[in-house]
Amino acid sequence: MRNSTRSKVDPFIVMDVMEAARSAEAEGRHIIHMEVGQPGTAAPEGARAALTRAMREDAMGYTVALGLPALRQRIARLYGEWYGVDLDPGRVVITPGSSGAFILAFTALFDAGDRVGIGAPGYPSYRQILRALDLVPVDIETAAENRLQPVPGDLKGRDLKGLMVASPANPSGTMLGRAELADLMEAAAAEGASFISDEIYHGIEYEAKAVSALELSDEAYVINSFSKYFSMTGWRVGWMVVPGDHVRVIERLAQNLFICPPHASQVAALAAMECGEELEANMAVYRRNRALMLEGLPKAGFDRIAPPDGAFYVYADVSHITDDSRAFAAEILEKAGVAVTPGLDFDPVRGRGTIRFSYARATADIEEGLERLRRFMAARGAL
Amino acid sequence: MRNSTRSKVDPFIVMDVMEAARSAEAEGRHIIHMEVGQPGTAAPEGARAALTRAMREDAMGYTVALGLPALRQRIARLYGEWYGVDLDPGRVVITPGSSGAFILAFTALFDAGDRVGIGAPGYPSYRQILRALDLVPVDIETAAENRLQPVPGDLKGRDLKGLMVASPANPSGTMLGRAELADLMEAAAAEGASFISDEIYHGIEYEAKAVSALELSDEAYVINSFSKYFSMTGWRVGWMVVPGDHVRVIERLAQNLFICPPHASQVAALAAMECGEELEANMAVYRRNRALMLEGLPKAGFDRIAPPDGAFYVYADVSHITDDSRAFAAEILEKAGVAVTPGLDFDPVRGRGTIRFSYARATADIEEGLERLRRFMAARGAL
Repeated sequence: MRNSTRSKVDPFIVMDVMEAARSAEAEGRHIIHMEVGQPGTAAPEGARAALTRAMREDAMGYTVALGLPALRQRIARLYGEWYGVDLDPGRVVITPGSSGAFILAFTALFDAGDRVGIGAPGYPSYRQILRALDLVPVDIETAAENRLQPVPGDLKGRDLKGLMVASPANPSGTMLGRAELADLMEAAAAEGASFISDEIYHGIEYEAKAVSALELSDEAYVINSFSKYFSMTGWRVGWMVVPGDHVRVIERLAQNLFICPPHASQVAALAAMECGEELEANMAVYRRNRALMLEGLPKAGFDRIAPPDGAFYVYADVSHITDDSRAFAAEILEKAGVAVTPGLDFDPVRGRGTIRFSYARATADIEEGLERLRRFMAARGAL
Repeated sequence: MRNSTRSKVDPFIVMDVMEAARSAEAEGRHIIHMEVGQPGTAAPEGARAALTRAMREDAMGYTVALGLPALRQRIARLYGEWYGVDLDPGRVVITPGSSGAFILAFTALFDAGDRVGIGAPGYPSYRQILRALDLVPVDIETAAENRLQPVPGDLKGRDLKGLMVASPANPSGTMLGRAELADLMEAAAAEGASFISDEIYHGIEYEAKAVSALELSDEAYVINSFSKYFSMTGWRVGWMVVPGDHVRVIERLAQNLFICPPHASQVAALAAMECGEELEANMAVYRRNRALMLEGLPKAGFDRIAPPDGAFYVYADVSHITDDSRAFAAEILEKAGVAVTPGLDFDPVRGRGTIRFSYARATADIEEGLERLRRFMAARGAL
């Protein structure tokens, strides 16, 4: 049996790091995990309690394809609470994680061969999902002076059928301000490119509230998830807001592609939305960790960084130290006992000279990790 | 914003039936549900208890993309128990339901424009998922004398890159015997078509054990799920067994398309595999229901049926009664208070003259449903 051409997607380089870290731990070494893109915390207590109750009371068979009506309504209400947007719950689609939302959005909007713009650096799976769906990812190399976000001029002459942006972004943590986002949406519309806004890190913000594309226009696909702010990565439940006249198309695709999102995860997610106290306690940890990183990384010689507006990453330019971020990450793991992600996963070209640090884990780990990095860089003669 | 061409998939007609049934119930009518393709039972008690425990002890973040190693090992062992096949757990891939397995299999094997054979009648989503992935579903009209399963001669001259079969099949419940399955696999190989075996109804068998494609060859994709025999539809967890040299490709696709299957569902699924007593009690209900259907349907005038080898459906030829199964199903719902599925969902051409009855629910419902059908058909003058 042959494999298809579309199936030849790139490996995640971070997986090699994780495997090396796991194998070091199996040998008895203690590793600090700054490579992982997920909270160390479980789903909120209230979410787990709600599921335990539901499992006693309900057979928990298929839900309808668009998801539990109560969850769709509660999410619509969140748009009022977070952004002051009055959102019709009928436009909210519950998805199997933001991953499921990407698949739905790309198939609903694009045909084989269509070109879709994505920012570099950016979340690696955008590129790979597009390829797996026989679409053409078009890397937009973003500039440091634009805080690693695309700008309207980047869209010209690229024949894009779609543009995907993320704010806060992974790996940089930078956000698009209201004006920048509005300009980008207008530019995409002028080019005839459908606009997809990945808002998965909304809620994890430090200086200012992130702006949702829905505050500016209804003509966008907005994708979010319970994975990050709600601390529910493994539950695979997210959502998407689409224009009203796209709901039926999405519903039919979702019926066929997924049948429904996991019922148990939907029940837990609904309850998680009432667990504000626990979620804000998680945020306090991220805030503390971020401050430690912004202070500690420069002291360890990683001074080419920008304060992240949101998410839980610092993206460091290390091009003055190495032109092989993969080997450098391996060296940091081996000598410092700290796992970090080489930039190549996010930017196939310039990622040679960048590294992503995650600070999603416990504060004690961040402190220890920073100290290890400082000692490692001092021993390397870089300090 | 425009929708893509690939997104124009057909609606499920059964959804209209379900909506009509729901609306009748909202008006206070009592409806017997013979349209639904899922068990009325919850996940086994032991599965729910295991999840409740795990939620206390584990953060339940992402699992690795291929799924929990313990679950992959346990499934490999099931192939020994059920089929006497010695299976390498490394070839088992946990998926977000069989739906996720279809997406992985189709993207791993086929490029845009490739033609994939599917039996008619058959599970409607095969056709729609193929279309959404820019592939070309090729309906193979199966014959009653072949028990509504494809035969080697059907593959000739169709330029197929793949062939998808299901045994036991939905909607017919018929199985391919060992020789028939072997012949079909050989014929597909001779045509250069990759073979995909949907074995989602394995375990729900009445006269003989279903044969797995893995008993005959390692050169096939085998898809199964916890939805049916293990009574876990809403949990969205299934699995796929692929040739050893396809595992890496599937792993990369799964990492990008899904990240991982729902962690909670994997924990529950692993425990469900040790709940044999409860699962066999469910089987006893299906066996009793099947006997009631085979006795009661002919008495109600639905005598053009074949005893199903497996699954929990009876597919009835009603072409002597109607040439509009959709209107007929609506009439049955309205006058008899029984919801059934029009054959058009399964066979776009001949389905005008067929109806699917499901007997997955409680025995008391089956008895009442059969009595209502008899009275309805008597009143219609058909008896």
